[in-house]
Amino acid sequence: MNSCRVVVVGAGFGGLQAAKCLADSGIDVLLIDRNNYHTFVPLLYQVATGQLEPEYIAYPIRAILRRFSFLRNKAKIQFLMAEVKQIDFSKRTIETETCLISYDFLVLATGSQTQFLGVPGASEYAFSMRTLEEAIAIRNQILFCFERAIQESDSSRREQLLTFTIVGGGATGVEVAGALAEMLRGHLRRDYPTLLPQVRLILIQSSDRLLAELPKKLGAYTHKRLHQLGVEVYLLSKVTRVTSESVYLQNDEVIPTATVIWTAGVEANYPTILDEPSLANKRKLIVHPTLQLLEQPNVYAIGDLAYLEKNGKPLAGFASEALQQGVAVARNIQLQFRGKSPQPFSYFHKGILVIIGCYSGVAKIGTFAITGCLAWLMWLGVHLIYLPGHRSRLLVLLTWLHTYLSRDRSVRLILSVKKR
Amino acid sequence: MNSCRVVVVGAGFGGLQAAKCLADSGIDVLLIDRNNYHTFVPLLYQVATGQLEPEYIAYPIRAILRRFSFLRNKAKIQFLMAEVKQIDFSKRTIETETCLISYDFLVLATGSQTQFLGVPGASEYAFSMRTLEEAIAIRNQILFCFERAIQESDSSRREQLLTFTIVGGGATGVEVAGALAEMLRGHLRRDYPTLLPQVRLILIQSSDRLLAELPKKLGAYTHKRLHQLGVEVYLLSKVTRVTSESVYLQNDEVIPTATVIWTAGVEANYPTILDEPSLANKRKLIVHPTLQLLEQPNVYAIGDLAYLEKNGKPLAGFASEALQQGVAVARNIQLQFRGKSPQPFSYFHKGILVIIGCYSGVAKIGTFAITGCLAWLMWLGVHLIYLPGHRSRLLVLLTWLHTYLSRDRSVRLILSVKKR
Repeated sequence: MNSCRVVVVGAGFGGLQAAKCLADSGIDVLLIDRNNYHTFVPLLYQVATGQLEPEYIAYPIRAILRRFSFLRNKAKIQFLMAEVKQIDFSKRTIETETCLISYDFLVLATGSQTQFLGVPGASEYAFSMRTLEEAIAIRNQILFCFERAIQESDSSRREQLLTFTIVGGGATGVEVAGALAEMLRGHLRRDYPTLLPQVRLILIQSSDRLLAELPKKLGAYTHKRLHQLGVEVYLLSKVTRVTSESVYLQNDEVIPTATVIWTAGVEANYPTILDEPSLANKRKLIVHPTLQLLEQPNVYAIGDLAYLEKNGKPLAGFASEALQQGVAVARNIQLQFRGKSPQPFSYFHKGILVIIGCYSGVAKIGTFAITGCLAWLMWLGVHLIYLPGHRSRLLVLLTWLHTYLSRDRSVRLILSVKKR
Repeated sequence: MNSCRVVVVGAGFGGLQAAKCLADSGIDVLLIDRNNYHTFVPLLYQVATGQLEPEYIAYPIRAILRRFSFLRNKAKIQFLMAEVKQIDFSKRTIETETCLISYDFLVLATGSQTQFLGVPGASEYAFSMRTLEEAIAIRNQILFCFERAIQESDSSRREQLLTFTIVGGGATGVEVAGALAEMLRGHLRRDYPTLLPQVRLILIQSSDRLLAELPKKLGAYTHKRLHQLGVEVYLLSKVTRVTSESVYLQNDEVIPTATVIWTAGVEANYPTILDEPSLANKRKLIVHPTLQLLEQPNVYAIGDLAYLEKNGKPLAGFASEALQQGVAVARNIQLQFRGKSPQPFSYFHKGILVIIGCYSGVAKIGTFAITGCLAWLMWLGVHLIYLPGHRSRLLVLLTWLHTYLSRDRSVRLILSVKKR
């Protein structure tokens, strides 16, 4: 069973799942990632707002791979920490900074990066939140602004430092806004009591409601809840320019702000591919329903990388999609290896959960729309279940308990580290 | 009681203690530090070797200050996160990057930095370990070397990557060497089983024994224990040059190594002082027995900054010295403020404890020299007691238990973050 080489690029939800399922079925796998850890992306915003230690949502890949239980006949997953520079479909090779790797089957699972929508200044001055390092940088920035503001005698400069702008009112933007608002009600209020009256939290959304992918009533509930938390919500507002000191809106309004957090969308992120594949919106790779690339039957793309539709609409980019696709890809590679035809992937949509600050959330499960405390508890529960490993679950649970009970717990370090 | 301004520069052990004692006695204090957190320096090496999360030994200063219990008549401690650029004793001013601060009394507690002893290449290529960021950089480096080595086909380059050299066989060097050895016996062995035979851990000491400040038999025990752990100990060896690829010794031996950790000594670290104060060895400020600077009766220096002798020998730079000096300085400023004479500081030496890997250590308490498991337990106990806050104690204790029981727990992330 082991005479084919399968390479999986990207150790996110989809890539790890694909690697695990392939190994479980007896196929040796080489897993490549630029980092030596897997990030639990749904909780990144909690690192960015100082609620969780970064290490609680980052899992050493080698430890994860060792924990996969292999029975006697199962195969192994080899891991390589490397940046993939270039892929050549015709030669079936992957080039990293140190070596050239050949493959029989390739799974591309490199995920996404922030999409700046061509807005001038956004990529230079706005903060992304797609990696652990970016989340820590946001935390550093927020705390730095408060420390700087308390020394600032110029009141307009102080206001600029204390204005935090989030661009993008989807699930991520809502969660960041809510968490920032809770930071203010918690330790920031106690550490900087004189500054609170000047703080502004602004959430900018281009469409006419928040959480545009959910039913209107959930968007309306979210808007009301954020408003109660002190967040100013700007609907039907587009950002036309970002500088180090302001955001400019389409209606010519200028908001002085030292911190712009960009949660307005993502696009596919992948290394240079010599044979230019067919692309869809957001640079996604167009795939067959089997998840194979067009004209590349031995190459698969999954997760945020792949353009796939369900009921005429593109998939939204949730972790559950990537996980299910990882399973499907492993099954299809096995089928191909046995000379059979791969099967189309069918996404089973389990629902959407969004948390709003503490004690509140919205959820859509099937046709049910849920708001408030119940949605919040469901969100907590699902995320705890999906966290890799018992230790992480325990630490995150204890941290959440401490936070919700004391409202004073957070990671308040301004810390920077060079990689090496 | 509050009509004098006392400024404390540096929120390490000494500075925090001085600030607390001054406030307890009703004197308002301004505490300045370049970071917004206090670092529990004795456990830095455990961050460097991935045993502890960085956040477990870093405490937000504002949270510490809020926790100081103030009774109705007590004063408050104001905190400023700033880098002090320059101090002018004659004008009694402190210049930061944002403002000019005047003082009536000044306490300098800015601690120490790595001393490279004029060895060419050491400051460029060796890793210091005096700050949290430096400790994380060492962790990144160790893990990176293993990840890189596993891809390296050139065996001499691989050996270089897998050779880790520690320069300086005092307490810090011994603790790092022991912890690195335990990393190898723990998760590194499981994650990189094929690399282990090539790994070298080298500890270089210029004098004829390790832990030169302790009795010979403790140094000999330590040497034997490290040898059992697989550490190569070079005594009577001086480093003459460091490059990105090697260390050069005085006897002309060249050790190919990609990682040099410098624990060979520290020197005082302080901002520019316009009126050049009298300096001693390691750039320390010479002080009266009262801890006042010579010719500056309203300026005190404590901790690693101050040159002080006991029984004709300079103090060694332990945390307990700084803590006691913090108390003494606060008392002396109160006395001065009441028009009385400051009292000489007398250090009460509680003992020295050094840990060697897991389950072993050495201790000197009074005339008693202790080795082995008892010394190790004493070391654990003392450090747990001195950690600020119950939460840190609990998390560090649980982490140690997990580590000692499973030998597989560690923080294995290669992570870099820009400050802002």
